[in-house]
Amino acid sequence: MFRKEIKVLDCTVRDGGLMNNWQFTDDFVKDVYNACVASGVDYMEIGYKSSEKAFSRDEVGAWKFCEEKDLRRIVGDNNTSLKLAAMADIGRIEPEDILPAEDSLLDMIRVAAYVHQTDKAIWLAEHCLDKGYEVTINLMAVSTVIERDLEEALIDLSKSRVPTIYLVDSFGSMYCEQIEDLVDKYQKFMPGKTLGVHMHNNMQLAFSNTITGIIKGCNMLDSTFLGIGRGAGNCPTEVLLSFLKNPKFKIKPILKVIQEHLIPMQKDIDWGYFMPYMITGALNQHPRSALKWMAGDKKDNYVAFYEQMTDKNDL
Amino acid sequence: MFRKEIKVLDCTVRDGGLMNNWQFTDDFVKDVYNACVASGVDYMEIGYKSSEKAFSRDEVGAWKFCEEKDLRRIVGDNNTSLKLAAMADIGRIEPEDILPAEDSLLDMIRVAAYVHQTDKAIWLAEHCLDKGYEVTINLMAVSTVIERDLEEALIDLSKSRVPTIYLVDSFGSMYCEQIEDLVDKYQKFMPGKTLGVHMHNNMQLAFSNTITGIIKGCNMLDSTFLGIGRGAGNCPTEVLLSFLKNPKFKIKPILKVIQEHLIPMQKDIDWGYFMPYMITGALNQHPRSALKWMAGDKKDNYVAFYEQMTDKNDL
Repeated sequence: MFRKEIKVLDCTVRDGGLMNNWQFTDDFVKDVYNACVASGVDYMEIGYKSSEKAFSRDEVGAWKFCEEKDLRRIVGDNNTSLKLAAMADIGRIEPEDILPAEDSLLDMIRVAAYVHQTDKAIWLAEHCLDKGYEVTINLMAVSTVIERDLEEALIDLSKSRVPTIYLVDSFGSMYCEQIEDLVDKYQKFMPGKTLGVHMHNNMQLAFSNTITGIIKGCNMLDSTFLGIGRGAGNCPTEVLLSFLKNPKFKIKPILKVIQEHLIPMQKDIDWGYFMPYMITGALNQHPRSALKWMAGDKKDNYVAFYEQMTDKNDL
Repeated sequence: MFRKEIKVLDCTVRDGGLMNNWQFTDDFVKDVYNACVASGVDYMEIGYKSSEKAFSRDEVGAWKFCEEKDLRRIVGDNNTSLKLAAMADIGRIEPEDILPAEDSLLDMIRVAAYVHQTDKAIWLAEHCLDKGYEVTINLMAVSTVIERDLEEALIDLSKSRVPTIYLVDSFGSMYCEQIEDLVDKYQKFMPGKTLGVHMHNNMQLAFSNTITGIIKGCNMLDSTFLGIGRGAGNCPTEVLLSFLKNPKFKIKPILKVIQEHLIPMQKDIDWGYFMPYMITGALNQHPRSALKWMAGDKKDNYVAFYEQMTDKNDL
C-alpha cells in the first residue's frame, strides 16, 4: 500500500506513558526518537502539553508537560525530517502554556476532545494554528456517541480552520464495517479535511482497522512500537511500516528498540491482548475498569472480571 | 454478526499441539473439550489422524494419532452437540487407518494439502466421505501459488464431492483485500461449495481476516483458545465468539480455561505476536525459519533475525 500523502505518527512515548505516568528514562526516549528518524516515521508524539496546575511532578514524568528544556535534552535542535508533536487535553492545559511555534521544538499540537467538548477543542486548536503549529483534533470515544450529536460536532469541525480530524476508537470496540461507515460519515460532513485514525487493540483489530482507514482514504496513521499504549495498546508501528510500501520506511531501527527496551518493559507494564481489555472492548466500554482490574491482585481471574462486567449476563 | 449457517471450529489441541508435539495433559484436553461444549462451539479439532509409521510415539503425544481409546478417555461417548474433527495430512496417513465413521467418535476429517497435492487430497477426502464422515479440504500456503495453478486446483475441487473447502493463510501474510480477492475467486471457481477460513496471526490480522471471510460469505471459521497455534498462532476463539451475535455462544467457559491453562502455558510455549513470526508473515515466508530462531539461544535478537531473512535488504 503506497500513497504519498500517508503520514505515520508514532505515539509510543505519549500513549505508552499512560501506563507508567511517563516515567521513561532519557535513554529510552532518545532511542525511540532516533529510531523514528532512522525508520522514516513522519511525526513523533513525544508527550502531552499540560498545565503544571493540573498534574504533580511527583506523580508524572517530564513527557506529561513537554517543556522545551526537556525536549532539547533529547532531540537537540531536531535537525531531522522528523516532526515532533504533543497532545493537549481539553481542560488540562492553559492556552498561555503553549509557546509560539517559532520558539518551540514542537511542530504539531493534537487536541484530544470528547464530542461534547468540540467547541472548546476548535477554540484551542485554532489558537495553536494562530501560534504557528500544525494542528489536529482527535475526537475520542465516538463509539458511544449518538448519531445526531456526532453529526453536529462534525459540522462544527467542518466549519473550523482545523485541517486534520482523527477518528479515534478509544475503547477498541470497532471492526472494519464500523470504521468504513464512520469514515464515510466524516468525509460526507467534513469534505476537504485530512482524516487520521487512532485505533486501540483490545480485540486485536488496531492494525486491521488502520488498514481499513487507509483503504478509505485516511492519511494520518497513529501507531506505537510493539503496540505499547493504554490497556490493550495500539497499532504496532513495525507492522504498519512493513505493510506500507513506501521505500522510505525501514523497520530495523524499530526492531532494535523493541528488543532493547520494549521486551524488557513488558515485565513491568501489562499492555496488550489481556482478557480484561478484550472484554471491555467487546462490550464497548471505557478500559478504566480493566485497567483497575489489571492493577489489582486478581488480575488473572478473568472469569471474575467477566462476571463483574456483565453482571453475570453472557457476552 | 449473526448468520445461522456460521459454524465455529476450535482447533486449540490440533494446532496448539504443533508447538509442543501434542504433549498435553488429559486435564487440559478435557477442559478444552468441556469448554467447547459449554460455549456453543460447533466442532472441536482434537488432533491429527496420522500413521504410526510416519511418527514415533516417543516424540509426539496421543493427539497426533487420535486413536479411539484416547478419544474415549476424554469425551466418553460424546453425547453432546459438539462434533469432533481430526486433520489428516496428505502422505502421513494410510487410508486403512481411518475407521468407518460409525465405529469412530470422530465426526469430521479435514484433509490438509498443498495445491500440488490436490488430486491426492480429493481422493483421500472422498474416501473419508464414503466412510461416512463430514469432510473438508484445507488448501494450504496459497499466498505463494501462481494464479494458474490455484485456478486449476479450484476447478478440480469444484468437480469433487467434497462439500467444504478452506482458504488457509498458512504464512499469516495476507490482509483484507487479498482475502476478499481469494474468496471471490473460490466462489467463482467452486460455486455451491461451503467455504471456510483458517487464518494465522503473524501480523495481528487473524481475527480481522476471519471477519472479512464472514462478510464475504465464508461459514466455517477456525479459531483457538487465546490464539494458541504454530508460531504466531490463530484467530482467538474468545474474541471470535464475542463478535458473533449468535446467543448460543458463551465466552465464560473459555475464559476459565485460558486463566487456568493457557496463561501458565505461555511460560513454556512462545506462540503469539513475536517479531520473528511477524517478519516471516510480512515477507510471505513459511514460519519455519522463525520457529527455528525462537527455539535458539538468540531468540530475542530480532535485528539479527531480520538481517538473516532479508539478506540485509530492507523490509
